[in-house]
Amino acid sequence: MEKQLFGNAIVGQSGGPTAAINATLAGVIEGVFAAQAEKRIGKLYGMQNGMEGLLAERLIDLDEAFADRDRLQLLKNTPASALGSCRKKLPLPEKDPATYAEILRIFRKFDIRYFFYIGGNDSMDAVAKLSAYFQQNDYEIRIIGVPKTIDNDLVMTDHTPGFGSAAKYIATTVQEILRDCAVYTVRAVTIVEIMGRDAGWLTTAAALPGALTGIGVDYLYLPERDFDQKAFLADIAAAFERHPNVVIAVSEGLRDADGHYVGEGTQSGVADAFGHRYLAGTGKALELAVKEAFGCKVRSIELNLPQRCASHLASATDIAESVAVGSHAVSLALAGESGCMATILRKEGESYAATYGSSPVSQIANAVKHVPDEFINEAGNGVTEACVQYLRPLIVGEVAPAYENGLPVHCILM
Amino acid sequence: MEKQLFGNAIVGQSGGPTAAINATLAGVIEGVFAAQAEKRIGKLYGMQNGMEGLLAERLIDLDEAFADRDRLQLLKNTPASALGSCRKKLPLPEKDPATYAEILRIFRKFDIRYFFYIGGNDSMDAVAKLSAYFQQNDYEIRIIGVPKTIDNDLVMTDHTPGFGSAAKYIATTVQEILRDCAVYTVRAVTIVEIMGRDAGWLTTAAALPGALTGIGVDYLYLPERDFDQKAFLADIAAAFERHPNVVIAVSEGLRDADGHYVGEGTQSGVADAFGHRYLAGTGKALELAVKEAFGCKVRSIELNLPQRCASHLASATDIAESVAVGSHAVSLALAGESGCMATILRKEGESYAATYGSSPVSQIANAVKHVPDEFINEAGNGVTEACVQYLRPLIVGEVAPAYENGLPVHCILM
Repeated sequence: MEKQLFGNAIVGQSGGPTAAINATLAGVIEGVFAAQAEKRIGKLYGMQNGMEGLLAERLIDLDEAFADRDRLQLLKNTPASALGSCRKKLPLPEKDPATYAEILRIFRKFDIRYFFYIGGNDSMDAVAKLSAYFQQNDYEIRIIGVPKTIDNDLVMTDHTPGFGSAAKYIATTVQEILRDCAVYTVRAVTIVEIMGRDAGWLTTAAALPGALTGIGVDYLYLPERDFDQKAFLADIAAAFERHPNVVIAVSEGLRDADGHYVGEGTQSGVADAFGHRYLAGTGKALELAVKEAFGCKVRSIELNLPQRCASHLASATDIAESVAVGSHAVSLALAGESGCMATILRKEGESYAATYGSSPVSQIANAVKHVPDEFINEAGNGVTEACVQYLRPLIVGEVAPAYENGLPVHCILM
Repeated sequence: MEKQLFGNAIVGQSGGPTAAINATLAGVIEGVFAAQAEKRIGKLYGMQNGMEGLLAERLIDLDEAFADRDRLQLLKNTPASALGSCRKKLPLPEKDPATYAEILRIFRKFDIRYFFYIGGNDSMDAVAKLSAYFQQNDYEIRIIGVPKTIDNDLVMTDHTPGFGSAAKYIATTVQEILRDCAVYTVRAVTIVEIMGRDAGWLTTAAALPGALTGIGVDYLYLPERDFDQKAFLADIAAAFERHPNVVIAVSEGLRDADGHYVGEGTQSGVADAFGHRYLAGTGKALELAVKEAFGCKVRSIELNLPQRCASHLASATDIAESVAVGSHAVSLALAGESGCMATILRKEGESYAATYGSSPVSQIANAVKHVPDEFINEAGNGVTEACVQYLRPLIVGEVAPAYENGLPVHCILM
């Protein structure tokens, strides 16, 4: 049944950091250590800065780094990519055969037979290209993608590791901001800008305080709907009829019907290696529009990087699943799979439970899962009960990171 | 010795919210409840929105609101002002005798003999004016100020309730941002903008990750020093010699030698009721300057409101002291004091311990305590060991707020 393949393993992290990507790394490490105990895998290497470090042979000996197994617990509560990351876009083999020949040389040199790559959309593209290349090559290797992204925009998986923690951070922070904004009696609008270039998943999390406690944001706006400034200002006017303190959540990726980003005027103009434009001004642009329309106090709050790195407030559900999906990736490889991504699936039933599966990475790379229509209300300024039911279990549970002198203790690998 | 004075008590909150001002409210309530048990105080009222609500007779029956004593624990972990706040500047009695006559009428009506006002600089000004007025009036009342401000800029107290929690949030978040910023190998500068219009105390907290763990921000800049953009850019160039990822902390209140705010170009121009100009652009202005000088990736992160309302990450030391100083204020009043502010003092000795005192509020109102010279390094881009020793104990300890469905549970009074 299972075809045994003995050799060394390597793991890398890629793309934007999250509060849970190290938990997934810990899951891969635990999976490999278990396989080592059964003599099914040899050494475990980590690539520093993903493919970039692999090509430069900057490898870390993870057997040595985690000889003290207690460090794995610290790793699970450490934000960002402990192995470093990269935004290297892997070229097509036919366009750049030298790069692939170099990868093959390095794999042979270190006898790498198991390759785990933890990342989002762009990272799955690298996994797809590598696994397609090695399927047509006589070097036997099992290549597995492991999902990671706060954006929750990968297809074939119920949700992505890292999303639940980001959602918990957003929901908790929005709730704290709601308390803060409620103290004065003068009219004021607070606009909370949330990450999400193309998909509004993170912004939907701003609906949770209202859904779970009855006191929430007045409206939220997702990139899945064309942004209509007139309707937006009418919403605020309606909210003022109810109370003086209006709180709004907006996605950084809002675009008008013509496809122009709302924050375009205040854009930095800088594009990353994948050609994504860096947005910096949706909240600020709307702040100015509201100030002009209502003349009241307006504040915009960009939640910014803490959304993806606030591991002190991670979701225990997310961290546990992130570890599990990492270990599951190792099981998939041991079972002979390659060219697939480990997935998280939601069990049918009354109460929430996750199970783990896999899908061909070619079906996942470069596809984007948007917030579906049935999760967005008719007016396009809020979410439905179905959306709340989907989100609700993902933020459940608190982690207990170790603290020393009042600061969380992190695991530093490089 | 103590002159007994029986009557009702009232408590209010004023100024900007903090993560600990409700803990102080809880302390006042516990102090009053204890005095009630000894038949020394009658009822306890809360003013909604501080002096603004007092003048409108919008009072809350706190005996009833906390008949279930368990709610006090929730209150201690609820951010912002549960009684609401205001930014009302109390006029001088000679300028506006009608307002004072109205306050007297309301005090008589509700038989208020104990008045507790929790707030910062501007609130202590109100306490000073009220107590001066009632010293020359035959209505006997004891008026006590209780400190609160994340800014830590009140004199006569070692530090202010709320500062430790804000400092812990800043130190923890900066540490998480440091992890996040370390993952790529390309040159990048991250600028973290921290609150503090006139005093740099909150920005000094950004030094803690480096001081406590060895990995910290490269430099930090305080409003206590004239900001010199040339020296700032030279610092960044020096940091690039050491590593590609440069992280800088700046106070929102940075000014150049001519007294112009660094963020002045991007200021909103809006001033609050006290004439403070609202700053919105120090980090953004420096982001543009660094981009122009180095052409590298630059990001600015404004920590914004979460600095003052992230009660989920409050300092246990701060919360305990905030409760204690509230109860101490009640003891002061019972002992016959009036016109004073309860203070936190640091005991001499090797290990940190707080004790509580009082100072005449007239010495505190409208004075600002800046970061002293001996806490700032010679180059003006970092702090000294003495500063670290001062800050260190204030962030120690974690709170354990109640969570329900993954969200912290707050105490809502209005």
